[in-house]
Amino acid sequence: MKNSIGTQVILTLFGESHGPMIGAVLDGLAPGIKVDEQFIGRQLSRRRPQGATDTARVEEDRFTIASGVFNGFTTGAPLCILIPNENVRSADYEKTAMLARPSHADYAAHIRYHGFEDWRGGGHFSGRITAAIVAAGAVVIPALEAKGIRIATHILQCGSVSDKEFTDFTTEPDLVNSRVFPVIDNVEQAMTDVILNARAGNDSVGGKVQTAITGLMPGIGEPWFDSLEGVISKAMFAIGGVKGIEFGRGFGFASARGSQANDQLFNDNGCIRTLTNNNGGINGGLSNGMPVLFNLAVKPTPSIAQQQRTVNMETGQDALLELHGRHDPAIIRRICIVVTSLTAIVISDMLALRYGSDWLSSSATHCNR
Amino acid sequence: MKNSIGTQVILTLFGESHGPMIGAVLDGLAPGIKVDEQFIGRQLSRRRPQGATDTARVEEDRFTIASGVFNGFTTGAPLCILIPNENVRSADYEKTAMLARPSHADYAAHIRYHGFEDWRGGGHFSGRITAAIVAAGAVVIPALEAKGIRIATHILQCGSVSDKEFTDFTTEPDLVNSRVFPVIDNVEQAMTDVILNARAGNDSVGGKVQTAITGLMPGIGEPWFDSLEGVISKAMFAIGGVKGIEFGRGFGFASARGSQANDQLFNDNGCIRTLTNNNGGINGGLSNGMPVLFNLAVKPTPSIAQQQRTVNMETGQDALLELHGRHDPAIIRRICIVVTSLTAIVISDMLALRYGSDWLSSSATHCNR
Amino acid sequence: MKNSIGTQVILTLFGESHGPMIGAVLDGLAPGIKVDEQFIGRQLSRRRPQGATDTARVEEDRFTIASGVFNGFTTGAPLCILIPNENVRSADYEKTAMLARPSHADYAAHIRYHGFEDWRGGGHFSGRITAAIVAAGAVVIPALEAKGIRIATHILQCGSVSDKEFTDFTTEPDLVNSRVFPVIDNVEQAMTDVILNARAGNDSVGGKVQTAITGLMPGIGEPWFDSLEGVISKAMFAIGGVKGIEFGRGFGFASARGSQANDQLFNDNGCIRTLTNNNGGINGGLSNGMPVLFNLAVKPTPSIAQQQRTVNMETGQDALLELHGRHDPAIIRRICIVVTSLTAIVISDMLALRYGSDWLSSSATHCNR
Amino acid sequence: MKNSIGTQVILTLFGESHGPMIGAVLDGLAPGIKVDEQFIGRQLSRRRPQGATDTARVEEDRFTIASGVFNGFTTGAPLCILIPNENVRSADYEKTAMLARPSHADYAAHIRYHGFEDWRGGGHFSGRITAAIVAAGAVVIPALEAKGIRIATHILQCGSVSDKEFTDFTTEPDLVNSRVFPVIDNVEQAMTDVILNARAGNDSVGGKVQTAITGLMPGIGEPWFDSLEGVISKAMFAIGGVKGIEFGRGFGFASARGSQANDQLFNDNGCIRTLTNNNGGINGGLSNGMPVLFNLAVKPTPSIAQQQRTVNMETGQDALLELHGRHDPAIIRRICIVVTSLTAIVISDMLALRYGSDWLSSSATHCNR
Repeated sequence: MKNSIGTQVILTLFGESHGPMIGAVLDGLAPGIKVDEQFIGRQLSRRRPQGATDTARVEEDRFTIASGVFNGFTTGAPLCILIPNENVRSADYEKTAMLARPSHADYAAHIRYHGFEDWRGGGHFSGRITAAIVAAGAVVIPALEAKGIRIATHILQCGSVSDKEFTDFTTEPDLVNSRVFPVIDNVEQAMTDVILNARAGNDSVGGKVQTAITGLMPGIGEPWFDSLEGVISKAMFAIGGVKGIEFGRGFGFASARGSQANDQLFNDNGCIRTLTNNNGGINGGLSNGMPVLFNLAVKPTPSIAQQQRTVNMETGQDALLELHGRHDPAIIRRICIVVTSLTAIVISDMLALRYGSDWLSSSATHCNR
Repeated sequence: MKNSIGTQVILTLFGESHGPMIGAVLDGLAPGIKVDEQFIGRQLSRRRPQGATDTARVEEDRFTIASGVFNGFTTGAPLCILIPNENVRSADYEKTAMLARPSHADYAAHIRYHGFEDWRGGGHFSGRITAAIVAAGAVVIPALEAKGIRIATHILQCGSVSDKEFTDFTTEPDLVNSRVFPVIDNVEQAMTDVILNARAGNDSVGGKVQTAITGLMPGIGEPWFDSLEGVISKAMFAIGGVKGIEFGRGFGFASARGSQANDQLFNDNGCIRTLTNNNGGINGGLSNGMPVLFNLAVKPTPSIAQQQRTVNMETGQDALLELHGRHDPAIIRRICIVVTSLTAIVISDMLALRYGSDWLSSSATHCNR
Repeated sequence: MKNSIGTQVILTLFGESHGPMIGAVLDGLAPGIKVDEQFIGRQLSRRRPQGATDTARVEEDRFTIASGVFNGFTTGAPLCILIPNENVRSADYEKTAMLARPSHADYAAHIRYHGFEDWRGGGHFSGRITAAIVAAGAVVIPALEAKGIRIATHILQCGSVSDKEFTDFTTEPDLVNSRVFPVIDNVEQAMTDVILNARAGNDSVGGKVQTAITGLMPGIGEPWFDSLEGVISKAMFAIGGVKGIEFGRGFGFASARGSQANDQLFNDNGCIRTLTNNNGGINGGLSNGMPVLFNLAVKPTPSIAQQQRTVNMETGQDALLELHGRHDPAIIRRICIVVTSLTAIVISDMLALRYGSDWLSSSATHCNR
Repeated sequence: MKNSIGTQVILTLFGESHGPMIGAVLDGLAPGIKVDEQFIGRQLSRRRPQGATDTARVEEDRFTIASGVFNGFTTGAPLCILIPNENVRSADYEKTAMLARPSHADYAAHIRYHGFEDWRGGGHFSGRITAAIVAAGAVVIPALEAKGIRIATHILQCGSVSDKEFTDFTTEPDLVNSRVFPVIDNVEQAMTDVILNARAGNDSVGGKVQTAITGLMPGIGEPWFDSLEGVISKAMFAIGGVKGIEFGRGFGFASARGSQANDQLFNDNGCIRTLTNNNGGINGGLSNGMPVLFNLAVKPTPSIAQQQRTVNMETGQDALLELHGRHDPAIIRRICIVVTSLTAIVISDMLALRYGSDWLSSSATHCNR
């Protein structure tokens, strides 16, 4: 499927960093979902660079809905959103176009596409395209929330500074979704310092984000190859910079014993729940009714203003490269809304598979047991 | 796709732990792949329980190739392998059938399948089905090796004991693939002690495995949703007990700076390589010609012989459960060959997409640059 | 997908004419569908050769359900059915193995599979594999009927003899499904004479079948590429010998005017219907609530006992071929149940996409308006 | 997949008749295909209404390539083409919006989309969207032709007037592709009269088109569910008005005998060919190296300016409808280029599956034997 993901609700991405526009087609939506263009705009603004911690390439992200919406509601036909590229400076890239930027896709893409790839600003591999993910996600997020399903992502770690993990699922998702710098605890300043410190050293910094899905009914997902973990992870690795994913206790399981790690069950006033949530809300690939929890490892932005060794991809010769475009010293803040939006889309897909193509807009109610 | 994975080379799984048989259909294979039944048998024996560290349920895994092979070679038609279930003791499960085993799929499956699920030994969720993955993988592994592509998985961590990471890609993959207890360093005894110790305490233990793919050409994978990371991760989360995956430095990136984390490139006698391999051989979702490296977090086997709280799924009432079937105190040894086999299948799929449906059996040679 | 079809309900076929067995995996079934093994047996018997009009290769079609059924109901896990090949005489094919049988797949397969194909009795291309379609269809047909959806196929034309078209949708589908020789009118003897006459001349004969789906709710299907016509047609062309499909008036539209061809609508006691059904129950790719009607063109069996020109596929040299195996002089009778069964599977898929994965077994009721 | 088709080369459609624009995303293209915008323009002009036989709604079809092309060549990233809607008169539809137009998708869509569908001019069901198919097809057609693969479609029948069938595959495809009114024989005037005659009677007329694919290598396609017939037919039924498809002799097989219908093989100066081509170049679902030939039945345009019975979809009440928008009295001329373009896309997909993702732009040559 390459640039598409999903079975019932299908997202297709297109566009390049320095082309005329980027966009997304969202197919298989239930008819009758109210489309709130102001909300789409607000979500896009959460991804937009802001202040000293982000890149200087700021764009308005004026979007156009080209299809699939009529009188303010989804029609059920494919919804295409277009976002023009406005603040493009290709000249930054021209001189060094054939010098592969270390830890970017450049060299692999040059082999894959035989030199025909659009190398300007990373072309189709650019994080710029994630704006289309955010816009598309903003179509389904309100519909999921109307069903009681809420998704939120916060910065769990930035360099050496950590946020606290999600614990209060009633208030923290909303808190995180309301903040420009999405953290739970009072760590914004410390994390900002880490980022500014990296920028001052012509460097960049990595981190970790944590996502919670609350209100998801048990029994969503499939055994084996459409496990909830598998479907979410496939989506998440589409986002540039993501290099790891763990559900619940994740890599912490490696040194645990079963007696500590198992989530025992109990009847919580008629609702079956687990005492702990080490499994991050998923057993056997299916949701179990507890909050779904996963963490992503995000690598430091590869574009740094330091001299690095590389090769000229056309001649094969060794070269030195010092990047002087406009880059984020950390994408860890901006990635949060992308992760939330893409999660919303794949969860919508899983729900439509389970309950049918109309479900996301229907007024049907569900009980877990 | 549920129980199927792949686009050109497609694996479909079926069967239950206590049904008459399990099996796999492998469709889209190139014609002309030599099928070595002795090799399939050897690979299955690597997954089979052995000695005190594994479950007492040992089966011969006598398999039948039902279709797709003629005169010892694949025909290009779907290859179906059947493996009968031989050593089944359903009585172990009957009394407690409606008591959800903590951290197993039982409760989620009961909701998903409305009580119609086969609960005997985990039914279709059982690790037993991974035998079919191993058998199917054994069809493509020799074909990949003939192309210079080698896959190996070792136990990186078991409880508190760690193996060394892959560093010598010429010798270590073969070493690992030749060992019953797949480790690089001299840690078998220490890890065995960890497992026996857990068993003695009626407990189980988790771990971490590391996989290397060597010889993979650069440019394999797709940007966005068919990234090599995404495709591999979706496959890996099908394996019961896997709760995390990281590529290259993975979660270690979170506290790193770009200047430390970037993989600089150089011309290594005409071949473009990177000085380090923090990205685990993948940039922008595409292979870059360096060894592909990933780690999996494996949770402790949930079946333990200790009293645990749970609920009766039919009545919803609280209950206590103490499991007395035959269980592995750790699956970390047996999972290695499953991971290698499933990786081989998805890599075969990616290569067939890239180079065409005949590629895996053709004599065509490839150069990276 | 090659040997698989469907999105929610997915059928995968495997096996060869002269291999040990053939089979099917049916994935994505709702849990809780009652599986009636006697009905499966009866459906298989409708496909089995009978008497002078069919091939002398008769097999018992003793099937085994290898997975996916527990206590007589589907579990929701993939259901695998195996049917052994019993009455195999490969010697019929050995001498002339490299002589491409005219109008069979032999030559195209030889190029596609580079000589590795199993050529015995057509291998994986054999009509024998349709037995697995019938067995799989027999799992979903009763579930569809419980929802009020009925599928029936009759021989519309055999050589120069025609049956009447479906007109009475209350009685004719049941009539057709109850008859060994599925026709509506009193044409069995005339059609049998056509077939026996062809056999006497060492020849074979083609025909046309007509299928009706009654009780299908309006709004099933998708615009453009998952149109009901497109989905059904893709399935039907999987059946060997099918060379054409038309919906409703089909090719008769070519010489019609809009004023004659349009299906005008009216309110039929609260139910919206059309005065005529020229469109065969489908508009814009979606069902419209009227019976879905389609015809298939079936070519004469290519295996005839007359001398034909051909080539030796290995040497490329001209040759003469006279086939003396056991062949059907017409497959038009036996194909009917295959068409019905495969239609049932794809319709089940479309319904599960529309109403969710549980729908086929749920007790939910639907009204059209 | 709904509005997408293909596995390697994937076409996604979006847009509505009266929305701001329509468009297509073509993903999975080989990098390095030269994109000829003038050719795209010319192909679009072949679909555009011209003169008295077509609708009065004429649009310039000024298209924008939004992504996937760099320096005049495909990059391998998804190629998005946008075509604005210019000449829109929604007022034609407003008064009668809730009156289902007979034999249009209106009623089925109203049920499927619960009244949220864009009803203006048929919305997403409009033939207008086929302009995006033509634009996308124009990207791959020159690449196919560079490989020796040529596709052409002519009007085989219009009302009672017939063209001759393809017989000379060297000259007729080019002839047909060069003509505004694509016929082989001297029948343009007679067919035009049929159409004008229908228009004069406030009526419309159906027809039949025939498509040839020449130069296709043998062995393309898959047995069972990705047969060449199945893949082509699924695509063709996406085109509004198509109600039947037949390959080669098609429905003519019904009254034929095997001895007349079989295509015997011979060695034609080193190339294996068949004496006749009754099977339309396909056996067992695979191409056999002969020209692929198929016919489509096209129903009369349902929009006619005569009074027809219908219902009000909101109230369910009987009503009368007389359509007075701008409509084609026949789409048989304009459909030809749509059929050719969509065929080119699915054939490109099949070839990329067979020979790999780069094939369409590579300089590799192929011989059939």
